[in-house]
Amino acid sequence: MADRFSFQGLLSQAAPPPRKGGAVKRGKYDFAVAYPDPDSIPIDGLMESLKHALAEEGRDLALYADQRGYAPLREFVSEKLARDRDIHVSADDIILGDGSGQTIHMLLEVLVDPGDVLLIEDFVYSGTLNQMRRFQGDIRGVETDQDGMLPDALEGAIQKAISQGRKPKLIYTIPTFQNPLGWTMTLERRKAMLEVSQQYGVPIMEDDCYVDLRYDGEDVTSIYSLQELGDLGDHGGDDMGSVMYVGSFSKIIAPGMRLGYLTAPKELRERAQAAKSGGSVNSFAAYAVHRYATGHLDTHIEEINGIQRAKRDSMLAALGENFGDRARWSQPDGGLFTWLEMPEGSDITSIRDRVLETADVGYIAGPNFAPDGVSGRNCARLCFGYNTPEQIREGIARLAQAFEREGVL
Amino acid sequence: MADRFSFQGLLSQAAPPPRKGGAVKRGKYDFAVAYPDPDSIPIDGLMESLKHALAEEGRDLALYADQRGYAPLREFVSEKLARDRDIHVSADDIILGDGSGQTIHMLLEVLVDPGDVLLIEDFVYSGTLNQMRRFQGDIRGVETDQDGMLPDALEGAIQKAISQGRKPKLIYTIPTFQNPLGWTMTLERRKAMLEVSQQYGVPIMEDDCYVDLRYDGEDVTSIYSLQELGDLGDHGGDDMGSVMYVGSFSKIIAPGMRLGYLTAPKELRERAQAAKSGGSVNSFAAYAVHRYATGHLDTHIEEINGIQRAKRDSMLAALGENFGDRARWSQPDGGLFTWLEMPEGSDITSIRDRVLETADVGYIAGPNFAPDGVSGRNCARLCFGYNTPEQIREGIARLAQAFEREGVL
Repeated sequence: MADRFSFQGLLSQAAPPPRKGGAVKRGKYDFAVAYPDPDSIPIDGLMESLKHALAEEGRDLALYADQRGYAPLREFVSEKLARDRDIHVSADDIILGDGSGQTIHMLLEVLVDPGDVLLIEDFVYSGTLNQMRRFQGDIRGVETDQDGMLPDALEGAIQKAISQGRKPKLIYTIPTFQNPLGWTMTLERRKAMLEVSQQYGVPIMEDDCYVDLRYDGEDVTSIYSLQELGDLGDHGGDDMGSVMYVGSFSKIIAPGMRLGYLTAPKELRERAQAAKSGGSVNSFAAYAVHRYATGHLDTHIEEINGIQRAKRDSMLAALGENFGDRARWSQPDGGLFTWLEMPEGSDITSIRDRVLETADVGYIAGPNFAPDGVSGRNCARLCFGYNTPEQIREGIARLAQAFEREGVL
Repeated sequence: MADRFSFQGLLSQAAPPPRKGGAVKRGKYDFAVAYPDPDSIPIDGLMESLKHALAEEGRDLALYADQRGYAPLREFVSEKLARDRDIHVSADDIILGDGSGQTIHMLLEVLVDPGDVLLIEDFVYSGTLNQMRRFQGDIRGVETDQDGMLPDALEGAIQKAISQGRKPKLIYTIPTFQNPLGWTMTLERRKAMLEVSQQYGVPIMEDDCYVDLRYDGEDVTSIYSLQELGDLGDHGGDDMGSVMYVGSFSKIIAPGMRLGYLTAPKELRERAQAAKSGGSVNSFAAYAVHRYATGHLDTHIEEINGIQRAKRDSMLAALGENFGDRARWSQPDGGLFTWLEMPEGSDITSIRDRVLETADVGYIAGPNFAPDGVSGRNCARLCFGYNTPEQIREGIARLAQAFEREGVL
């Protein structure tokens, strides 16, 4: 009998390494993944909305829809962006994707060749990191503090790359309730960042997927809209077209709906659209979210923010009680996580699996968010969206006990 | 004021050309796109199914699901493949995608470098062609007749490519109710194709997305399962692992659900999974389709096949009445289209827009399905899934009149 067929030599040089499927072990106290509150998913509202939509447009499920996705939902996004983020683009300028993750993938695919320099915050959402690695980007972290990326550090990183003959392809930032760090970039920093980016001709990808989850304080103007203010002196003004913007319904409706969106300058957007795989987004989900969002979304966001505020408060209080001055953590005004920093030199990365096993507490360790994949062994992202406030209190106490057992607290 | 930002010099060398969004003009008699029957979409059944699923698992919409997609639906696909296609793989060996289009994209992304030789039937689904072009494949058509790809032509194409130092990366085929040609590959041809492919070490991608839409005759064994029969003499036998298989729910439930699937040898599958953008498929749609398919799918398929059989019969009869012996067309035992061939030398490609305008009849001309993008100007795909039998009869009569006016009939 012949040997089994081998794909050796047939794989693309750009093929990504294998990824195994299968469920990841989750803790009872699941601070690992940025899930929203599972009890606040508006199931009845979505069902009711879907019913109406299907009565009106169910036959259209037989069609292959506009590649950009369901037009009325793009219209809704256009209006929401104008109202909430001072971003004025038409529905035609918006492309829906399967979560903001896919919209980021589309933009990266259009911009990034292997070896291209990509600038990001010093710790950043691992999903974006993975995509940047998939396109073989040279990912470089830029130093941040609690107000966001440091403009001087950004300028230095750009100058360094240029001096190497490799002008960066883009600056990726999550300016609001940054994942995993939890801070929100100040208006001054946003302006400074935009100014630097335009001075050197490096575009910004603004990932604003948590912006609606604000529990305290006032919204900070989007970076995208700052290019339209004409107030940046010599370098700026009036819709420069240097910012790409992505957002999502995952955190305000549900990740399972797989609906995100992008807007970007036309020359980029039309190529990003060509790079989208899977055709237009799921009409079934888009119908439901469109009908539900129209009229219900503001109330719903208010409601979930009340719930999630209590969860955040519970986590921050529990951290204070159990970790005191033996650790530091960020004070997020919104979003779904805080960033825990144990003293320099301690290692909560190698004990991660054991803590999950023995204490039933899950977290994701720092190196998962580091461009170099190794920094931040003393850090962890703690998400508070999934568990109840009581469970969070309990879980943080158990986490502290486990850290004590392991000798890191 | 500064100039508008330019992305000149920032685009990836592999960036696809821009694609404009926007609705395509459709005819009242819409034979252009392979839509299924819009009145047979089981809207009530899907709603009922979704309601049950959300009551049971609605909270899980808060989670980021297994990258391979909703496990119970993969289980369903596994059982369906075993029963209907003699393909025996576990749910773990299956990945769900946003339509079979995305699963093809994932596999191509893993296999194809620019310039790689890809062998396909001489006319083939334009969606696959576009994806192959997106990865800059060197797409070569292989001659077919009404029984499928000619084995000698296939062997010749492989030998030619090898003699150029460029062994083909894969053979793509739609063996059942081929799109756009309408034939079904015979068992003998399937065996011969598999034998040639294994002899030269070139894998096959079997796109079986129309297989459930059979109106006459008996199912033909899948190519995938033939590799397990061990009856291929010296070259074959027992799960060689040289065939990738993709299928879809688009044609048996609705395209708007965006649900397809792939199975492939592990080394390939795990890379394809890593190449998937957008995370796991939409849970909302997967829940509904899983619950609906379990228990209802067979009856539903029987029902839509009855409806679509009548549509096919109407189109074939109308072609006979209006085109007689002045044209040829395929006699599909299933699927959603027939392939119309006007006499060699005539051109129904350049008149396509005018026919749509004046007769309100839509079709897609041959070059859209040709690897070289120019062959087949005397050909068109005519889809019969969307209109009613009466409209089809009317539309074909109008098409013939338009062709007469244009002097091509």
